[in-house]
Amino acid sequence: MTIPVQHQYADDLRHCYGCGKNNQAGLQIKTHWDGREGKATFVPRPEHIAVPGYVYGGLLASLVDCHGVATAAASVAPPGQAIPRFVTASLHVDFLRPTPLGPELELRAWIKEQRGKKIVVQVEISTLDQVRVQGEVVAAPMPKTMGEEPKPAPTK
Amino acid sequence: MTIPVQHQYADDLRHCYGCGKNNQAGLQIKTHWDGREGKATFVPRPEHIAVPGYVYGGLLASLVDCHGVATAAASVAPPGQAIPRFVTASLHVDFLRPTPLGPELELRAWIKEQRGKKIVVQVEISTLDQVRVQGEVVAAPMPKTMGEEPKPAPTK
Repeated sequence: MTIPVQHQYADDLRHCYGCGKNNQAGLQIKTHWDGREGKATFVPRPEHIAVPGYVYGGLLASLVDCHGVATAAASVAPPGQAIPRFVTASLHVDFLRPTPLGPELELRAWIKEQRGKKIVVQVEISTLDQVRVQGEVVAAPMPKTMGEEPKPAPTK
Repeated sequence: MTIPVQHQYADDLRHCYGCGKNNQAGLQIKTHWDGREGKATFVPRPEHIAVPGYVYGGLLASLVDCHGVATAAASVAPPGQAIPRFVTASLHVDFLRPTPLGPELELRAWIKEQRGKKIVVQVEISTLDQVRVQGEVVAAPMPKTMGEEPKPAPTK
């Protein structure tokens, strides 16, 4: 098993609620990149419910987001170096059919195209042998102002 | 202040992680419908972080999702009756600029168009006097198989 992409971000960029190794309250999504595809599995918590029996769409959107961004970053990382941090410019999710709550979800992601510095990633979420969700993430390199000079949280 | 849209769903359909009154672990997003717009406010928790100082995109997508669906449902509800439950057919989110973590977020949503039984809703998230996120939700009436005959969670 490869080291998860998210564990190869710089240590001060591992706080993400969706996939940060350092976020104990978060989802801790882990993407594995095999050189062609990003792969991940995830078991939603019982509270990740939409209506009884089915997974909450916002959770599925979160999985698409973090798995897509990690796949984009891994695809351009120089071998043996820290993986650069990308952020989400836009996110599109089609809920093809309801996703049952309980079984493990399987995620696949692959690069669709590169637009300048942006990378467009396709993501699929399947369970019980059916694709439930199709998503597209436009990932962009993290602006330097977000990473190098983190601002204190402003208050209104 | 009006009664939140989500508190007017049938009691067995109030479990949603994003906006269900009966989901104690959830986000409990509350949409208020004034006849023209859906309005909501939300203060992210400290763990809802992307990188230090900024809100996690998956949380913002979740806010767009639940607030959009609730606005769609409220817009077609007969006065004085329970609000019908809609689900998300598709979700699109553009992250226009980073969203600072700390201050209250303000959400607005309005109906863009109706496509057969589907309702297309536009959503904006603002804070510190700037629109941070624009979203579009295509909401569809909940299929009867999801609500009237909830299936036990299948195991793989």
